[in-house]
Amino acid sequence: MYNFTNDYSEGCHPNILAALADSNLTQQPGYGNDEFTLQAVQYIREKCGATPVDVHMVAGGTLANLLVLVSALKPFESIIAVETGHINNHEAGAIEATGHKIETVKTPDGKLRPADFAHLLKKFPEYHTVKPRIVYISNTTEIGTHYTKSEVAELSAYCKANNLLLFMDGARMAMGLMAEGNDLQLADIAALTDVFYLGGTKVGALLGEAIIISNDSLKKDFKYHMKQRGALMAKGRLLGVQFAALLKDDLMFDLAKHANGLAQRMAKVFRELGYGFLTPSVTNQIFPILPNALITELSKEFGFFSWKKIDESHTAVRLITSWATPAEQVDRFIAAVQAYKS
Amino acid sequence: MYNFTNDYSEGCHPNILAALADSNLTQQPGYGNDEFTLQAVQYIREKCGATPVDVHMVAGGTLANLLVLVSALKPFESIIAVETGHINNHEAGAIEATGHKIETVKTPDGKLRPADFAHLLKKFPEYHTVKPRIVYISNTTEIGTHYTKSEVAELSAYCKANNLLLFMDGARMAMGLMAEGNDLQLADIAALTDVFYLGGTKVGALLGEAIIISNDSLKKDFKYHMKQRGALMAKGRLLGVQFAALLKDDLMFDLAKHANGLAQRMAKVFRELGYGFLTPSVTNQIFPILPNALITELSKEFGFFSWKKIDESHTAVRLITSWATPAEQVDRFIAAVQAYKS
Amino acid sequence: MYNFTNDYSEGCHPNILAALADSNLTQQPGYGNDEFTLQAVQYIREKCGATPVDVHMVAGGTLANLLVLVSALKPFESIIAVETGHINNHEAGAIEATGHKIETVKTPDGKLRPADFAHLLKKFPEYHTVKPRIVYISNTTEIGTHYTKSEVAELSAYCKANNLLLFMDGARMAMGLMAEGNDLQLADIAALTDVFYLGGTKVGALLGEAIIISNDSLKKDFKYHMKQRGALMAKGRLLGVQFAALLKDDLMFDLAKHANGLAQRMAKVFRELGYGFLTPSVTNQIFPILPNALITELSKEFGFFSWKKIDESHTAVRLITSWATPAEQVDRFIAAVQAYKS
Amino acid sequence: MYNFTNDYSEGCHPNILAALADSNLTQQPGYGNDEFTLQAVQYIREKCGATPVDVHMVAGGTLANLLVLVSALKPFESIIAVETGHINNHEAGAIEATGHKIETVKTPDGKLRPADFAHLLKKFPEYHTVKPRIVYISNTTEIGTHYTKSEVAELSAYCKANNLLLFMDGARMAMGLMAEGNDLQLADIAALTDVFYLGGTKVGALLGEAIIISNDSLKKDFKYHMKQRGALMAKGRLLGVQFAALLKDDLMFDLAKHANGLAQRMAKVFRELGYGFLTPSVTNQIFPILPNALITELSKEFGFFSWKKIDESHTAVRLITSWATPAEQVDRFIAAVQAYKS
Repeated sequence: MYNFTNDYSEGCHPNILAALADSNLTQQPGYGNDEFTLQAVQYIREKCGATPVDVHMVAGGTLANLLVLVSALKPFESIIAVETGHINNHEAGAIEATGHKIETVKTPDGKLRPADFAHLLKKFPEYHTVKPRIVYISNTTEIGTHYTKSEVAELSAYCKANNLLLFMDGARMAMGLMAEGNDLQLADIAALTDVFYLGGTKVGALLGEAIIISNDSLKKDFKYHMKQRGALMAKGRLLGVQFAALLKDDLMFDLAKHANGLAQRMAKVFRELGYGFLTPSVTNQIFPILPNALITELSKEFGFFSWKKIDESHTAVRLITSWATPAEQVDRFIAAVQAYKS
Repeated sequence: MYNFTNDYSEGCHPNILAALADSNLTQQPGYGNDEFTLQAVQYIREKCGATPVDVHMVAGGTLANLLVLVSALKPFESIIAVETGHINNHEAGAIEATGHKIETVKTPDGKLRPADFAHLLKKFPEYHTVKPRIVYISNTTEIGTHYTKSEVAELSAYCKANNLLLFMDGARMAMGLMAEGNDLQLADIAALTDVFYLGGTKVGALLGEAIIISNDSLKKDFKYHMKQRGALMAKGRLLGVQFAALLKDDLMFDLAKHANGLAQRMAKVFRELGYGFLTPSVTNQIFPILPNALITELSKEFGFFSWKKIDESHTAVRLITSWATPAEQVDRFIAAVQAYKS
Repeated sequence: MYNFTNDYSEGCHPNILAALADSNLTQQPGYGNDEFTLQAVQYIREKCGATPVDVHMVAGGTLANLLVLVSALKPFESIIAVETGHINNHEAGAIEATGHKIETVKTPDGKLRPADFAHLLKKFPEYHTVKPRIVYISNTTEIGTHYTKSEVAELSAYCKANNLLLFMDGARMAMGLMAEGNDLQLADIAALTDVFYLGGTKVGALLGEAIIISNDSLKKDFKYHMKQRGALMAKGRLLGVQFAALLKDDLMFDLAKHANGLAQRMAKVFRELGYGFLTPSVTNQIFPILPNALITELSKEFGFFSWKKIDESHTAVRLITSWATPAEQVDRFIAAVQAYKS
Repeated sequence: MYNFTNDYSEGCHPNILAALADSNLTQQPGYGNDEFTLQAVQYIREKCGATPVDVHMVAGGTLANLLVLVSALKPFESIIAVETGHINNHEAGAIEATGHKIETVKTPDGKLRPADFAHLLKKFPEYHTVKPRIVYISNTTEIGTHYTKSEVAELSAYCKANNLLLFMDGARMAMGLMAEGNDLQLADIAALTDVFYLGGTKVGALLGEAIIISNDSLKKDFKYHMKQRGALMAKGRLLGVQFAALLKDDLMFDLAKHANGLAQRMAKVFRELGYGFLTPSVTNQIFPILPNALITELSKEFGFFSWKKIDESHTAVRLITSWATPAEQVDRFIAAVQAYKS
């Protein structure tokens, strides 16, 4: 049995284990003031180009999302997001628990464009409704699509013109940046958003998301928020060591490329065999629509989620590959798919 | 320069690194459903004896404290704590951020007894004041003292009689349990409190506190609270592997004994040389009152905190040893102290 | 200029002014323990029939909504509501500010039926999503429709079967109960819901909503929540005197009937003249779709809101009558409408 | 039986009843945009002299306190107050429910001076503790003392120098301003504080506190906070009519003078008879220390609270007079006191 269930089934890349061992007994200051964290921050700043950024690392995506939002908003300000957004569905109300409303809109591809939410800025009467203040997008999105540079630039311009902040959830950022045809770089994101984060957990770290703040008004006192929400790690070195290892020689991006490549090999086979897809993903999670009989067959040897019933005899499934997925397992899977068809 | 600043300056015990490496590439379910976490929970249940407990591991102490308190309390219910309690001073308002008031009392030794807070149950008029519902204690306390079994039993009986819950913060639990003369066991704590946690971060883990719930009414839906507060780790295995390694053959307790022993060696020397102490600690943090000249001298080679000014020429300092402190560093420190005196 | 803008443009019914004057100088206990509040509670209990209820009066609808919801829910529990629900749009995020998510569904008539939200109970994976716990409905709804007894009974049965609470917002309850064809009584509502409120502000009081709790588990400590949210009035007599006056000899319901009757007279004229309606209201707020030229004409002498653009030349407007609307103003308005048509 | 229990036992001053009747049927905009509110705001602005202020009226003191504090603070910022402060004891945790910690200090007279709390600005380590941001004082204080102009000026200067805001709770402001020997005026308070409120409930209104904001940075979007906390009254006219009536020809201050005068007449008699006082009040609440036998005797005909046991045979009681207390009742009370002594 091999699992394509998610991209956090394995531990971490061996380089990280080695770096943890190497650094283990040196005494370091706590709470993110250690030398490894400083090194990782330095790597990130280089990637962000001309935009001066503050960087803070936290354990996971829900913490990153709630910290960014609670630190950016006044009590009556709201967040604009797509209905499929992670914060809206899979964080057990973490954002509302900080006191803020998420205003959602439906879009066909999990991406958000100004025309989708412009009406939310025209609510009336004043002070009886929440006041939109920040736009939340994910890249890649929850359904595997990703933004082009011009799409992010358009959002950025609209937000600036309308006194809105722009926040990009990057739990799967590396996969988006390495997607075939992508034209967006970290330096673009730093320049075009007010704050974003670069995920480590899903691309070879044991845990860790790096929150990267471009907008000066969001930088002050961020560590107070971290401490108050339980996100300030005593041994912050654990995060620093990992991000330093993942960013050295672009390891993180090579791992994302590996994950994308294997998923897209599977996608290519499905396409060639005539199967459709729920969403047009170009990254490491794909959603092919398969006959239920094939799903039953594949389930004997492979783990994955049934995502959405399409009709009586077809279901969309979600297949995820990771930095650690062996090419042989993908070969085995493809062979099983082809065997069924023939 | 060697630091006696805190007990989280180093990485983790080598057994943990080895266990991480051994388990690294096996695919595991996320969110605490992996086999290593199950193993760690099993170890903890055995330690807790006859009391059936639920166990959840989280990244740090602030998260553990806020999760326990937010899950146990209704909005108008308050927490009773000593003024020196960690939740009252060093968590940036994390508990109030969940909406709850901490009602504090002063005690001379950092410990809490029923007589210290009985008056808080008699506030009037009804529903104009908060309603005390949970008593928070730390063991060891923030100033290095620890509770006897009869003290905890007395608190437990009082709480039960007065419809109060009892919660023990165990960030330094292992040191307390291994303190010379201690008569309290984990099974006692499980039987006498409603919920407590067993700290890993300060006794050899990279991160991790195990929340242990005895009271059935607090068990239901705890994972919802964890997810909502960003405490549910995708790769929960990181916590499970560590606790399993630390609990195997009582490694955690051996490490605590090591830390306690070195601090108490230093304490013995100070006592023999006639120096007094701010508090009567029997664990791995001591607070000797030293001449400022000696402090200046020691600071050339050792790191530690000046804790409290006593008079013009004396200051209480805080010295902490850890699971990783080499005996030779303590020897060097003692030699420096003795050299100054002679 | 006469306004049909809302039902809170005037002060209060003269009986209330008289009752305030009569009771003015008698000394009374504060915080809702005065004799007038006790009298009002007694009137409400009689209306609620066999169901024993607790009653608490507060200043307004937003306070009533947030108090009921915050007292009924654990942090991770959510509210199910229609998208047009008052709590979702017109309370500036008051509910989210207490930490809870509102999960919304669209329905054509502002009413909610089990089939509309059953899917929200089947979200997965467990503890990654919020957990629905209470269903919020308004009667009359925000768009002037109202529930039949069998509709509420069906919701009630479904909620009980699915461990959900049922809460009815009754800011315009009196109008709903007095709507032509209504078969629902206060005693039915007390029996079928867990908690509801009976609005005073929109039916002749200066301010005041009476929260009525049937479910025993929601009764305890409600006054703590009230005090904590600033809803416990020192001179609670102000609320008690008003509700006692409004409930004596069913004054409140006569006033609602007056308001409904005038709005429905206007509706009848629009229907006869061939105009359509945005929603099929039977109470004191109606939404006729009118030519823009007529709207311009009417606006010269009457105040009301343009509600929704229908096409280039037509707009739905909202017309509200109140307990205080003089019949002559409605006559004048009707004459103006008829004059335009001819 | 006549009650000296509190200053909210009666309804409202007859001028208010008359003003409510006069204005009753005129149609007015809701939510504080009515002409009576505009008139009341105008009166207040005149009293505030050169300082331009925003004014918002709300139903009660707890709402006023929580609105000011939640609108002024970021999540990690704290409030400094005396331990006897109303927000710390008698609001059921209302402030903590908005997420903020109150840091308290003990003072002998219920007043706060910079030396009392300067140490709270020196907590360390940074971002592990809350960050003090606003100083809360009450005038008169909860124990009947009041601030001199120079005391408020000293606090104001210290706060400005230390990046702190200054907030004055004025639930009993009118009594403080009319206390014998007082040298503080509303214009001084507007100039020296960032925000304060002027209480109506305890000086002849049915309900109402007027929040007055001097600091520009606190003015923006205050109505959003009001709506979100349920404090924005649909019929805001109820507050406007009352404050307009109370401020016309300084009625409010005459009423406060009346209440102060009667309490001080009682105090003078107690002093002459040799009784001591718990606190040196100069306003409408006094705390004489009386023999228990006298208390028993007085309790037969008068209502009041026993406040604090002094010794086996003596107790401090609290006696409060109000705008509505008849002089004859005070005469009767004094006669009863004198009869006991002789």
